[in-house]
Amino acid sequence: MDDRTPGCYAVIFSSQRNDQPGDGYGAAADRMVELAKAQPGFLGIESARGPDGFGITVSYWESEEAIRAWKLHAEHVQARERGRTEWYDFSTTRVARVERAYSSARRGG
Amino acid sequence: MDDRTPGCYAVIFSSQRNDQPGDGYGAAADRMVELAKAQPGFLGIESARGPDGFGITVSYWESEEAIRAWKLHAEHVQARERGRTEWYDFSTTRVARVERAYSSARRGG
Repeated sequence: MDDRTPGCYAVIFSSQRNDQPGDGYGAAADRMVELAKAQPGFLGIESARGPDGFGITVSYWESEEAIRAWKLHAEHVQARERGRTEWYDFSTTRVARVERAYSSARRGG
Repeated sequence: MDDRTPGCYAVIFSSQRNDQPGDGYGAAADRMVELAKAQPGFLGIESARGPDGFGITVSYWESEEAIRAWKLHAEHVQARERGRTEWYDFSTTRVARVERAYSSARRGG
């Protein structure tokens, strides 16, 4: 978490998964996370999807160049296309520059 | 969605809800969303929480001033404190400036 400091970039991906994303979805989603983690400039990723199929994934990157390179990765291009046509009813991607961050953790109990 | 354009701000709140957040949690979470929506400068909110209790909420704001005012709202201060001590094992808040956004929607079937 400490690397995702001010000055880094967040890619906020919101998506509504459709009711029947098909067999390949889970494996492809896992593969994208593994692949992202292996890219230069990758800092971290967090993901949550509720029972209604709406999900948010935020990935963190060192620079705009790192985001651009990942966007052009052949396997990622292919997965995005499947996402658009097979898995998601809609999705939005937002690129944002992190200005500041705070954390808190429960101590004790 | 159209208001959350480049130049606006995203507040990315990631949290691990604990196993037994207690009775008040759901109502308080709903209340915070309603209250946020009523604040000046509020543009939108998206939220997802998976079965493991990890969740991401992203709210969008017109300006840093709007974020600051919401942060200081008395009921929000109180809810954050309960979140820290009762509901969440840990949480992180990141404020980021939206640089660009893309959407896609499946057409037809």
